[in-house]
Amino acid sequence: VSGPIVGIVGAGQLARMTAQAAIPLDVRLRLLAADPADSAAQVCPDVTVGTPAEALVDFAATCDVVTFDHELVDPVALATALGDGRVLRPSPAALRFAQDKDYQRAAFAAAGLPVPAHAMVVDAEAAAQFAVGVGWPIVLKSPRGGYDGRGVAVVERSEDLDAVWARMGDAPLLVEERVPIVAEFAVLVVRRPSGHSAVYPVVQTVQSDGICTEMLVPAGVPPDVVREAEEVGRTVADIVEAVGVLAVELFWDGDRILVNEVATRPHNSGHWTIEGAVTSQFANHLRGVLDWPLGDTARTAAAVATVNLLGPPDGSDPRARRADALAVPGAAVHLYGKAARAGRKLGHVTAVGDDPLETLARARRCVQLLEGGSFDD
Amino acid sequence: VSGPIVGIVGAGQLARMTAQAAIPLDVRLRLLAADPADSAAQVCPDVTVGTPAEALVDFAATCDVVTFDHELVDPVALATALGDGRVLRPSPAALRFAQDKDYQRAAFAAAGLPVPAHAMVVDAEAAAQFAVGVGWPIVLKSPRGGYDGRGVAVVERSEDLDAVWARMGDAPLLVEERVPIVAEFAVLVVRRPSGHSAVYPVVQTVQSDGICTEMLVPAGVPPDVVREAEEVGRTVADIVEAVGVLAVELFWDGDRILVNEVATRPHNSGHWTIEGAVTSQFANHLRGVLDWPLGDTARTAAAVATVNLLGPPDGSDPRARRADALAVPGAAVHLYGKAARAGRKLGHVTAVGDDPLETLARARRCVQLLEGGSFDD
Repeated sequence: VSGPIVGIVGAGQLARMTAQAAIPLDVRLRLLAADPADSAAQVCPDVTVGTPAEALVDFAATCDVVTFDHELVDPVALATALGDGRVLRPSPAALRFAQDKDYQRAAFAAAGLPVPAHAMVVDAEAAAQFAVGVGWPIVLKSPRGGYDGRGVAVVERSEDLDAVWARMGDAPLLVEERVPIVAEFAVLVVRRPSGHSAVYPVVQTVQSDGICTEMLVPAGVPPDVVREAEEVGRTVADIVEAVGVLAVELFWDGDRILVNEVATRPHNSGHWTIEGAVTSQFANHLRGVLDWPLGDTARTAAAVATVNLLGPPDGSDPRARRADALAVPGAAVHLYGKAARAGRKLGHVTAVGDDPLETLARARRCVQLLEGGSFDD
Repeated sequence: VSGPIVGIVGAGQLARMTAQAAIPLDVRLRLLAADPADSAAQVCPDVTVGTPAEALVDFAATCDVVTFDHELVDPVALATALGDGRVLRPSPAALRFAQDKDYQRAAFAAAGLPVPAHAMVVDAEAAAQFAVGVGWPIVLKSPRGGYDGRGVAVVERSEDLDAVWARMGDAPLLVEERVPIVAEFAVLVVRRPSGHSAVYPVVQTVQSDGICTEMLVPAGVPPDVVREAEEVGRTVADIVEAVGVLAVELFWDGDRILVNEVATRPHNSGHWTIEGAVTSQFANHLRGVLDWPLGDTARTAAAVATVNLLGPPDGSDPRARRADALAVPGAAVHLYGKAARAGRKLGHVTAVGDDPLETLARARRCVQLLEGGSFDD
């Protein structure tokens, strides 16, 4: 008897934090990394270097279960690996919801879930026609591959449309109403193959330039909105037939909740669970993909705040300022082992406490010290 | 810039849990393991296999700082490594307090710290003479190398002395009064080279057959005893010139606190800090040996209970029952990746909660499931 082997496709920070969660469970991780210097490959003794296209089938043959650090995996390679009888969790069918925004919108709308008004359009003229119905501004999205604000553009008015369309590149594009956002939330659900699931407390996510920068729990919204968000999360997880963690990003316009994006894996919006929940999203992802009983998703403190650490504009490495940041009391520093580059996600800091604003201030202060002071403000 | 390299001599469960703590801090661990299958070697990509005697000097030359998973290191090898200019933390001088019980008792007594009445004796006759002063029973201890009840024997009455003496082997032995124990505690202190230190909440430790089996926080003793224990902990850390975590095991006879043992490293009595304190003992050990600011040692819940998982009498492997145990809500399972053997420490379970007895019951229930049911009761 020993630990089962869970393979992870990709070796970024999500795999790195999963490696941390695998140690106490005595789960053996095997990584398929693009590069031996990847974030998770630095902390895992069992790494295969290769691309999914060339290595996934052989890799999967050595694992009990295979899961994913990212969704940028060729569906054909996945289907081949699955055809070989390997257990991919989540399945390629579930991954498609994260890979293909048009497919996702259509499936959720058909299930009666609230989604922004949307259409697939083949040219700027069709996008302009769509805008007649919903009003300006509109949002153009690449249906595949975009994240952290990439592949998404807001078109403020009709005069800007042709230029934005040209910049976005390949048609067809997804066009959507621009939702007047009061707040953004995420709801994380962890689900077993049997369908049993558990929902984490709803988290408010704060975006800056399309990148999620802060996460706040509790989310600071009315209880009925929290309940609706949880219900949407469970429903999405069932439609997707998620296994392991699924994250649903939600818009709130003060009235309606709308599904924005889904990720079929642990997610930035759930990093707070490492310190702030009884069971972290990473431990629960492992439990889910191994079909083990799910852990308690309750939060452990009155307030939890997570602030992302981005590479500072001057290109300097926050690790040079680590000791300064560790002097901030009650701030849990997470560094991903990645080379510093302006704007790149290099880590995050989580604080827990009794008062939401004091807790957030503590996490922010620690990140500010890591980022080397006040560039912007 | 990247993480500093911390070498660890030994690759047992303490090094394994330190590896877990090193990931978010982006500290690079390098292990000197006796065997590539050792607990920590399974989860660390950077392992040198060898004994301290043959490999320590070369090993230390590749690390920024070297620390220890155990104290079973030849002082001569340590002195050699230190002579080479390597940074050993704690120092060989500090390790001696854990390695040599006679030295420890003498130093603490000289500093006015409360210790049991004790003497070094060369034969059974001298031990009997000591018993005339303190009364029976007495305790015989090997001055070096014993732990978890090994190298310690209680002699109930004078008639038993010769037989026990013969079994204990090499003279001289340490003889001590048998303290009428009401409870045993431990106090963990983490200390930087500068002398700055932080104390964890006092923990009650419950022993069974000389092995620590349960840890309870709060310790359930009067506040003045807690304050005295904390004071003793800080004083011991200063005398030892500890760097990183130091654990002081204490006897309480309902009146006096007495220093029993010290360990100059993370300790079983501090495993509760992973879930139950703002900063775990393992993260703080790394901070201490790297001379970084120490993390907050406060507990995060009203009650924390840790129960050790020992190999069951039938030799079966608790990992075969992992899924059953994970169904216990709010119990954090830690498995050390060690082969099952009756009585061997294979892991532990920590529960946090509001009520001390309910919390302890939850951790016990989880361990009972891992151990495969009720062999004893």
